[in-house]
This record gives sequence, C-alpha cells and structure tokens, in this order.
Amino acid sequence: MKILALDSSGIPASVALLEDNVLKAEYTINHKKTHSQTLLPMLDEIKNMTELELDSVDAIALTAGPGSFTGLRIGSATAKGIGLALSKPLIAVPTVDAIAYGMYGTESLICPIMDARRNQVYTGVYEFVNAQDKPEGIYVTGDEHGYEFIVRMPQCAVDIAELCDRLNEFNRPVVMCGDGVPVFKDRLNELLKVPYTFAPSHLSLQKAGSVATLGAIMYRKGMTQTAAEHSPEYLRLSQAERERKEKNGL
Amino acid sequence: MKILALDSSGIPASVALLEDNVLKAEYTINHKKTHSQTLLPMLDEIKNMTELELDSVDAIALTAGPGSFTGLRIGSATAKGIGLALSKPLIAVPTVDAIAYGMYGTESLICPIMDARRNQVYTGVYEFVNAQDKPEGIYVTGDEHGYEFIVRMPQCAVDIAELCDRLNEFNRPVVMCGDGVPVFKDRLNELLKVPYTFAPSHLSLQKAGSVATLGAIMYRKGMTQTAAEHSPEYLRLSQAERERKEKNGL
Repeated sequence: MKILALDSSGIPASVALLEDNVLKAEYTINHKKTHSQTLLPMLDEIKNMTELELDSVDAIALTAGPGSFTGLRIGSATAKGIGLALSKPLIAVPTVDAIAYGMYGTESLICPIMDARRNQVYTGVYEFVNAQDKPEGIYVTGDEHGYEFIVRMPQCAVDIAELCDRLNEFNRPVVMCGDGVPVFKDRLNELLKVPYTFAPSHLSLQKAGSVATLGAIMYRKGMTQTAAEHSPEYLRLSQAERERKEKNGL
Repeated sequence: MKILALDSSGIPASVALLEDNVLKAEYTINHKKTHSQTLLPMLDEIKNMTELELDSVDAIALTAGPGSFTGLRIGSATAKGIGLALSKPLIAVPTVDAIAYGMYGTESLICPIMDARRNQVYTGVYEFVNAQDKPEGIYVTGDEHGYEFIVRMPQCAVDIAELCDRLNEFNRPVVMCGDGVPVFKDRLNELLKVPYTFAPSHLSLQKAGSVATLGAIMYRKGMTQTAAEHSPEYLRLSQAERERKEKNGL
C-alpha cells in the first residue's frame, strides 16, 4: 500500500510517501515562502528522488483542517487535483490529530495548540493506550504490539483559558506542542495547574510522515472520500465571513 | 543558534536545519539510491528552500556512528568538508541515541536496533525522565518543563539474543524501533519476556531533525569537535579488516 501525504495547514509545508508501512520520503519546510510556491515543487522533488509513479499510489492523505484558511485550500486543491486526475481516493486526516500522533507512545496526555488568533487555539486532547488494554477508538491499529491512539477531546477552536480549564479537569500530566506554544507560553504557565511539558523542536510541528501513518490506519478502515467529495474542515468562519455577519448584525 | 544536521548512517539519507530551537527544514529519503547521489543534492535543496547562507550556521551535527561503513564515511566527509571550508565545529551525535530521541516522552524504555549483520545489532537502551526528578545524564536540556533523555545502556554492537537478555533484566516495557525490527521481529517475539511494542513508521528510522535537536543540546554543553578531529565511530571492524585478521590468524 502506497500513501502520499500532504500538509499545508500551518506555516510548514510537508510531503511524505509511505509504502508498505515504511516511510520512504518525508520533506518539511518551515519557512516564510507560501505554500503555493513550495508544496508542488516539494512533491515533485520526493517523486523524483523515490522514482515514484504518481499513478501507483493507493490514496492521498492530507491534513483536512483546521489551520490557515489559505494553507488548507492549497493543500485541498493539490490533493483534489491529483485525486481527480488519477481517480485516487483522499483521506482527510484531522490536523490536530496528526500533530498529536507525532508524539507516539508518550505517557502524558498530548495537547497540540495552533494559534487561531483572537486568543483562540485549534486544539484537541489525545492519549496513547497500550493495545493490550483493548480500548475503543477511531485509531485502532490492530497491531497487538503497539499503542492505540485515543481522542480524549476532539479537535475544536476554543479560548486558551477554556482549554486550560479543560486540561486542569483531566488532572493528568500533559505535553503541549504546536505553533501556539511560543504564542501562549505565558498564559499556559499562568493557568495550567497540572504538570506540563513542551515537545522538543523535532516533534512540535506538522509533519506529513505523521499524516501518512495515521492516514494508512484510516485507509484500512475505509475512511476515504472521493476527490469531488472532499472539502477542508475550517472549524470557524473566515475573517471575511465573520465581518460580513457582524456588519449585517447577525 | 543555527544547527545543520546530516544523517547517512543507514539506508535513509536525511538533512535538517534547526534555527533558534525551531525546525526550519527536514528532508529524509529512504530509497535505494546511494548517499553519494542523494546527500549533497538534498542539502542543496533545503539550503535553497530556506534561503540559508551556509556560512551562517553555528555548527554541523552528524550521526557519527555506528551504521553502514560507507554511509558513515559519506556523512563524515560531507560534514568535514563544510566544516573545514567554513571553519565550523562538528557535533558528533551517537547514531542510536539520535534514533531513540525521535521517540521523546515515551513512557517505556526505548531500544533502537540497527541490523549489523551476522546476527548482531547496533543498539542501546534509553529513557525519558521528568526533568523535575533532576536526573544526571549527558542530555540534560536545562528546561524545567521537559523530559531529560537518559542513556541506560550506551550504544554498542551485540548479538540479538544477548540484547534480549539485557532487556529482560531491565524488566520494564520497551518500544523497539530501527531498521533491525523487520529483520529480527521473530527473534524478539521468541526471546523477549517483557512487554514490548514497535514504533510506527514515522518514528522508526533515522531523521536529521532528531540529530539537530540532540546536537543543539550537545552544542550548548560544548560537546563539539573541529572538522579535522572528527572521525566516525564504527564500533566494529569492517569486513575487510576482520577477514585480514582472520587470515593472519589473529
């Protein structure tokens, strides 16, 4: 099974190729260039380096949101374009789930935060549980020797203070990651009453390898869409939509 | 602080750029092409994408061994070349430590295994400990909100059966990762008496982002070498050296 994976939900752009559960390529650039300039050349680069025939992939996994509205649209348009051209299904991986999955096996709860502006974050709360405990969850790998990935709080847009309340209610140690960490570090220090740590640089942000691995689990469970069906999951109104609503007194 | 990182210790080739604790670029190819064909073009690629002036890096981190002899020599030659040309120090990151560091925060012991042929593996045993417990180790991050990375068994070349004995003596759950997992899966199933799991695809192999993050900790502790001083750590004799010794009855 071959899964091509894309992520352009935040500042980083990332592409990866997973083949028979082996990561054949992963390429991430976290620089100011826009995704319209980076994503396709990066895809072309790993395609050439791995001698990949695009037609040989089984599905295209992408972070389907939340995230930067423009970033999500570029990722979505790219995946839909390839999917339509080659009749391949898409796998819509929730962005926050994919970031959390990067921290496989951690003993704490995992809480990625993406800066959603206006004091809000896109976030969720996750946990890895030993497979032998047979938990119920979306991401059950079916591997007896592994951890299952459990969604404790599904991804959502919330105020940072409300998130801290929720984390305090869990009353368990938590690892924070994501691009919201430097933005909200002081608020976290002030509001969190549970033990917390910050993920190191190599695991803190979006990476398409994580999208591919999680996407492969979803693919085996039949969680795919056609390219025509797919659209990004923004979780909030765009600034333009919000301002129009406010102007119209809605 | 800018750290350029290289890994060519196994089949994957990987390059990364860490700037002020943010991973700016990471690029990994795990394909049959040899490192002599991939490593420099990959470095050039991330250099262009991040608009990096090579002269602006503070140090070059590389996996210094163990690993494929040819792979290590290519990584070493590349890092020494850049280091000599630009008068930059090198950071020699132990290969097995860097693979284990990819699994930051995991609650189990971490045991990467690299296939060293002749029934042997390059391996080591590692653990993440809460920083508040103030452990003593090489990799103390100095971050009060984080895990310290502790070496429980330093990297070495051992028989797979001997490694399993050692892991059974630790008497604790362990996550196995590295390119040795598919090779030795049956032996592990047979010999391990402790609970064990296998790392998922996106965390199982060498990645230069992990080398860069670990390299940054070593750099802050002054653990650098000059390019002229550096040489790879093979941990074993090469096949040619071994056969000459055997032939000479040594």
